[in-house]
Amino acid sequence: MNDPDTQKIRQQMGATMKRLLTLTAASALTLSATAQAQEDPIVRDAEYYILEKQHGERWTAEDQEIDAVMADFREQNGGNPPNILYVLLDDVGFGDMGNPTMNAVRGYKTPAVNELATEGMRLARMYTEPSCTPTRVAFMTGRHPIRNGMGNTAVDISGFGLADKEVTLAEVLSDAGYNTVHIGKWHLGDIREAWPNFQGFDYAAFPIHQQGQLTLYHDDGANEEITIGIGENNYDSRHTKDNWFRSDASAMATGVEGVRDTNVREVHMEPGERWTEQKYHEMNLRYQDQAMEQLRELAAKDEPFFLNYWPLYPIVGPRTTTAEYTTPNGGTYVEKMKLVDQWIGDLMAEMDTLGIADDTIVIVMGDNGHATKFSPESGFTPMLYRGGKGATLEGGVRVDAFVRWPGMIEANSIVNDITHVSDLFTTLARIGGGTGGIPRDRVIDGVDQTSLLLNGDTHGRRDYVFLYAINALEAVVKEQYKLAIPGGSIDNAILADFYDLYRDPQEKYPVSTEIGAWGGAKFVRMIQRHVQRKEQYPDEGPGLGRPYEGIENLRPESEAAVAEFLFMVQTPEK
Amino acid sequence: MNDPDTQKIRQQMGATMKRLLTLTAASALTLSATAQAQEDPIVRDAEYYILEKQHGERWTAEDQEIDAVMADFREQNGGNPPNILYVLLDDVGFGDMGNPTMNAVRGYKTPAVNELATEGMRLARMYTEPSCTPTRVAFMTGRHPIRNGMGNTAVDISGFGLADKEVTLAEVLSDAGYNTVHIGKWHLGDIREAWPNFQGFDYAAFPIHQQGQLTLYHDDGANEEITIGIGENNYDSRHTKDNWFRSDASAMATGVEGVRDTNVREVHMEPGERWTEQKYHEMNLRYQDQAMEQLRELAAKDEPFFLNYWPLYPIVGPRTTTAEYTTPNGGTYVEKMKLVDQWIGDLMAEMDTLGIADDTIVIVMGDNGHATKFSPESGFTPMLYRGGKGATLEGGVRVDAFVRWPGMIEANSIVNDITHVSDLFTTLARIGGGTGGIPRDRVIDGVDQTSLLLNGDTHGRRDYVFLYAINALEAVVKEQYKLAIPGGSIDNAILADFYDLYRDPQEKYPVSTEIGAWGGAKFVRMIQRHVQRKEQYPDEGPGLGRPYEGIENLRPESEAAVAEFLFMVQTPEK
Repeated sequence: MNDPDTQKIRQQMGATMKRLLTLTAASALTLSATAQAQEDPIVRDAEYYILEKQHGERWTAEDQEIDAVMADFREQNGGNPPNILYVLLDDVGFGDMGNPTMNAVRGYKTPAVNELATEGMRLARMYTEPSCTPTRVAFMTGRHPIRNGMGNTAVDISGFGLADKEVTLAEVLSDAGYNTVHIGKWHLGDIREAWPNFQGFDYAAFPIHQQGQLTLYHDDGANEEITIGIGENNYDSRHTKDNWFRSDASAMATGVEGVRDTNVREVHMEPGERWTEQKYHEMNLRYQDQAMEQLRELAAKDEPFFLNYWPLYPIVGPRTTTAEYTTPNGGTYVEKMKLVDQWIGDLMAEMDTLGIADDTIVIVMGDNGHATKFSPESGFTPMLYRGGKGATLEGGVRVDAFVRWPGMIEANSIVNDITHVSDLFTTLARIGGGTGGIPRDRVIDGVDQTSLLLNGDTHGRRDYVFLYAINALEAVVKEQYKLAIPGGSIDNAILADFYDLYRDPQEKYPVSTEIGAWGGAKFVRMIQRHVQRKEQYPDEGPGLGRPYEGIENLRPESEAAVAEFLFMVQTPEK
Repeated sequence: MNDPDTQKIRQQMGATMKRLLTLTAASALTLSATAQAQEDPIVRDAEYYILEKQHGERWTAEDQEIDAVMADFREQNGGNPPNILYVLLDDVGFGDMGNPTMNAVRGYKTPAVNELATEGMRLARMYTEPSCTPTRVAFMTGRHPIRNGMGNTAVDISGFGLADKEVTLAEVLSDAGYNTVHIGKWHLGDIREAWPNFQGFDYAAFPIHQQGQLTLYHDDGANEEITIGIGENNYDSRHTKDNWFRSDASAMATGVEGVRDTNVREVHMEPGERWTEQKYHEMNLRYQDQAMEQLRELAAKDEPFFLNYWPLYPIVGPRTTTAEYTTPNGGTYVEKMKLVDQWIGDLMAEMDTLGIADDTIVIVMGDNGHATKFSPESGFTPMLYRGGKGATLEGGVRVDAFVRWPGMIEANSIVNDITHVSDLFTTLARIGGGTGGIPRDRVIDGVDQTSLLLNGDTHGRRDYVFLYAINALEAVVKEQYKLAIPGGSIDNAILADFYDLYRDPQEKYPVSTEIGAWGGAKFVRMIQRHVQRKEQYPDEGPGLGRPYEGIENLRPESEAAVAEFLFMVQTPEK
């Protein structure tokens, strides 16, 4: 929703209507029982206040009970809140794990996650952002990435990333006494301030970029024609004039490691060395080993831990590192999905061995729908929901999500309240005793879903979600109804299609006459409130900086690639 | 596959190729170890012999083990084979019941079937025919309905039905000593020889027709405009000349009851009375009551029983009889689905009370995909698979299917071998000791899947299925690959689309280059063998007769409707 759009809405509303809405919002702020009860309330989006106004008193009562339950837990846990193990899988949508029937439909099995599902809770309406970076930003900051300029995804050298002034869950939990470690994919920028060890993690091992570099546009990917037009010998370069147009994956920084607020070092890559699919595979194996190792080290300490493990698999380009077909499906991603499931099983078994399973919240989820450009060879295609990665159709933003906390969260349960990945920020901060560390000078989109986790279905605190694709608000969900904004413009909401997501999970049967007749104006006002709130809390840009500054042992070819990038960035100003 | 097509194939193949195929088929017949071992082998379709040739010895060994296991069961069961309760739900596709996650996606719950699923086996690749009548014919006769003229579905008065010479599962099991009862939908014709009590059931209570009459084109349906252009006051009849063009649902025969080989009586309908939605609802309630009552009566007898219960719900037209919304979905069909699930739960509870749960095979399944013309108001839309009722896309012919036999079939198991509804005929006949009653003068498509049920996944005896829509062979499945025959003609198989059903359950990404290259000719030969086999065993027509002859208390308006029908039938001959 850019500025011209905001202008249009203002004009459309007229001065009177605008004043009325402002008064209503102010009144909600003033009169909210919960807000009054809190000395220093979190700043919310408008829609939350409307629910709080209607349910605040009940929520306060529930929260007091929850505080007591959590105090009991800490008492029985040596004074500590629970450990947190958060496993975020890449491009894994809804129905890909945790359900034997859907396993059968796909022709592969995920026994470890299936077991986790029977031991914990399925968040059946977990919404993410539609691609990697924005979902990860929403989890880390509790905010829609539109607010901090991180709606976009960079594949190669970009010079932007998560701004230092953003407050991450790692910072919040660290301040609350947690040991914090990040292992695996990060993908929140190639500038130092964006890196996990500068964003609250005591230790981090991660690639600077993502799988676009690591498994697609390297030489092996080019040689198998998974990526075209790059590489050393697979295109006719006689007419090529701009040698910088094609990034060289091997020149880009790869995996780095480092401790908090200290420069990182690139590992397992020497100057002049070519990046290969085998090296990507080894990187995956290494991160799994490191996750296991960190789990053991963290478990041995007195403080609680937050272990943030984001595997790179199942995303894979060439079939190079898959020794054999082990599933009837046999797709490239599916074979790696099976591997990741085994790894999750190994982590769960290790937790049992360490005796920490009952003291630890485990969350396993996907970050967005399938990358359909690799269908069907990947083995994944949109199935229960329509659309994939990048789309605000349910297939892009609905994912499998499981939460296990033995004795605290009901085993084998399914909840149908809406959740958004940003809610995990607020919820885990609260469970970890870090609510006080959540910043009060900006809108926090994530709502506290502790009551949903502990009290079960219907106890969620959200009945809406705003669905952005990069920087455009494309759809809005309220209850089971979804408004797809035509052409991304609020002006056209009168022409919008509405869907009933229970009756029509695939969004194929618009029902404007049934829902639009009463819901149309309500949806438009939801959007107006959301946009209007940005006048007080404007969207901001990302952090900007010199790529790779902060890598101690930067290779000469990486330095050259940065120089090329900077020259190209500065060209428009010449 | 009609005669002109057969001609084309002959021409295409040429004399040599034809002779070669004939010799191959004959050789398979001669050399099959299993066939030799059987004194009086069942006549199969060609494809079966190819598998038997490769696996016959193992199958024979397995069968000997199974015979021993079954003998043990009978010994512990007073000499009896198990009772059989077969519940066939109308227009219930894949994912509509038996899975809590998919329940959550749809916004309703099927706790009774979900429990049944945990107690039994899910046949994850159960194929049916794409609509009501053909699926039911395949179950009752073990034959594709193309073979006996029952591929088509009649809604109003039609004068055809399942021929007397067809041998049904009820006849087979009756001859083997079972008490047999049919309750609910039948839909195999409006002529006497087609009715359940003339096809092997000791007692039957059923409507002559189906829901087209009973819940759609009656006055209530017309008044709510669920059906248009009929009824008393909802269309302008000033230009109507042909008063017979519109059937009057109330003039058609409704529910009847009767005992074996004896004329039936229409019940709960007086001359001049109008059929209503309320009467449809009462009919549904009555069938459930009768199913419960018959269960008790049958359980009290010394012989084993076969109770065939085919509810009419969840199919429903107007919302008239739904008192309130009880699910988040709230769709018309979904609300009735919830009711049917409760009824299944009541049957299961009654079996526990009667102490027969361990002695009874329970099968609950759908008959084909959703009737999408009622989407999304019905609450059902295609979801996991594409397409609905009438289509040979997976969404038309893949259904939820659960089999429970405590102690004999592994609880909470899922099998991915292909099964076809006709297999239940052969399998239940075998389990019931009735294999000897299966006719040897015609092709039986159903294969014996007892080993799959008792020994689990990979022990199925079918890796193929032919998918007919009415009388056209539209698709062929072998393993996980599906050939959609373009334009229904085998001539075009070279242009056909192939799908990998694991990687692409929705049949959206044809992969001809990957599978077609080696599989194309193999698929064409499958079809050729299937068609060629019909030279020896030609497809035949259905039974024909005077509609309603055999209803003792036929109403005058029904007699008049039959007279109109017969006049119209004879008109072309004038």
